[in-house]
Amino acid sequence: MQRVLLKIAYDGTAYHGWQVQPNAVTVQEVLGDALSKMLKTKTNITGCSRTDAGVHANEFYCHFDSMCNIPFDAYVKGLNALLPKDISVYSAESVSSDFHARYNAKSKNYIYKILNTQVRDPFLKNYTYYHRDSIDIDKINDFCQKIIGTHDFTAFSSSGRTTTDTVRTISDCKITENGDILTFSITANGFLYNMVRIIVGTALEVSEGRIENDDIMNIINSKNRSLAGPTVPPNGLYLNKVYY
Amino acid sequence: MQRVLLKIAYDGTAYHGWQVQPNAVTVQEVLGDALSKMLKTKTNITGCSRTDAGVHANEFYCHFDSMCNIPFDAYVKGLNALLPKDISVYSAESVSSDFHARYNAKSKNYIYKILNTQVRDPFLKNYTYYHRDSIDIDKINDFCQKIIGTHDFTAFSSSGRTTTDTVRTISDCKITENGDILTFSITANGFLYNMVRIIVGTALEVSEGRIENDDIMNIINSKNRSLAGPTVPPNGLYLNKVYY
Repeated sequence: MQRVLLKIAYDGTAYHGWQVQPNAVTVQEVLGDALSKMLKTKTNITGCSRTDAGVHANEFYCHFDSMCNIPFDAYVKGLNALLPKDISVYSAESVSSDFHARYNAKSKNYIYKILNTQVRDPFLKNYTYYHRDSIDIDKINDFCQKIIGTHDFTAFSSSGRTTTDTVRTISDCKITENGDILTFSITANGFLYNMVRIIVGTALEVSEGRIENDDIMNIINSKNRSLAGPTVPPNGLYLNKVYY
Repeated sequence: MQRVLLKIAYDGTAYHGWQVQPNAVTVQEVLGDALSKMLKTKTNITGCSRTDAGVHANEFYCHFDSMCNIPFDAYVKGLNALLPKDISVYSAESVSSDFHARYNAKSKNYIYKILNTQVRDPFLKNYTYYHRDSIDIDKINDFCQKIIGTHDFTAFSSSGRTTTDTVRTISDCKITENGDILTFSITANGFLYNMVRIIVGTALEVSEGRIENDDIMNIINSKNRSLAGPTVPPNGLYLNKVYY
């Protein structure tokens, strides 16, 4: 038996996220079907993260166990030939039998892209969150500095979470500007349910003066979801890097 | 009565081209419905070009006649509020009552984007034509030089064309490289049906040595469609500029 780690990317527009669920097409299901077809045996795949419907991945890792002794490059070529064009496999490598795509991930980087123009760009509909009002980059970077560190992020988490451990460590967080697109980048050892989208929603509230940076620590300490900002839409969110 | 010229852009992925047709959603229909709703009267729109299903427009002009004396900026804001997110209106301006978005266009520039990588980029599925084999830029630019000028382009036209005048003047044609994306750019005083897609298909045949640059003039003079290259898919094609 050989444990194989795949590095993939996907445009999440057409999928109900990564995780298999009834009555909805997911990346895990489509990739699992392609792999099972290729290996001619039902093969389960374990992902590094659950992404929500419409969320994208520039980099996503998943592992599976194979009884086939085929070259690793054959996984890349074979799967890419079978997969729809919005999922790509970039590499396949051998990992030890106790390696786990999710539990071995030390940290992950997500980015959230915001389009800040007077008129929407029709080509970025599924790939950015459109925000017409001007954005105060300095205020948001001050906000980023406040949330960096180890905190209980319950206030920045939706109620659908399945974990009881709500403490996470954000090691890096910033917003950068590139033309009309602002990119919010956040790296942490783990993320609660909807945490990135609520943090970005809160950052935009800070930019617009509806939440003050001086109140951020109080909001964190309150553990009260209703004090943080709204959950921004999934289409601007990308799992961007996974660190093992 | 006021003739109004709109400058718009659209992601053509979800549309069966510009032109209204039965049993298919088109940009002309969706834009016309939004305008008719806004003006509270059925309003016909005339476009600068017919684009095919899946073809995009970075810049597209269309005109209509309005009895309403509203500020031009109100057309922009009103239509953008009513339109789906894959069609955007950038400007509205007054033109004389004999101005025609199609007949007054002196020339148009189309671009065709080719993704040239070992593995597909899942985010560019609808926005580029994927071509894995290496592309000979110099050979294609030699080809471009050969088709610049005034020629009968029957050999580079699909049979669905409705015009009998098949002579067009290509004023500029080139391919440029930007990272993994090659952009074929062509400017002419008009284009026959599928002309850009057949020219790009022929350029790729030249790159791969299946058609020789020395034969291009013979292919043009033959007026024989079967001697030119295949029609490449619509998803890489963008109407990019219209010159009045």
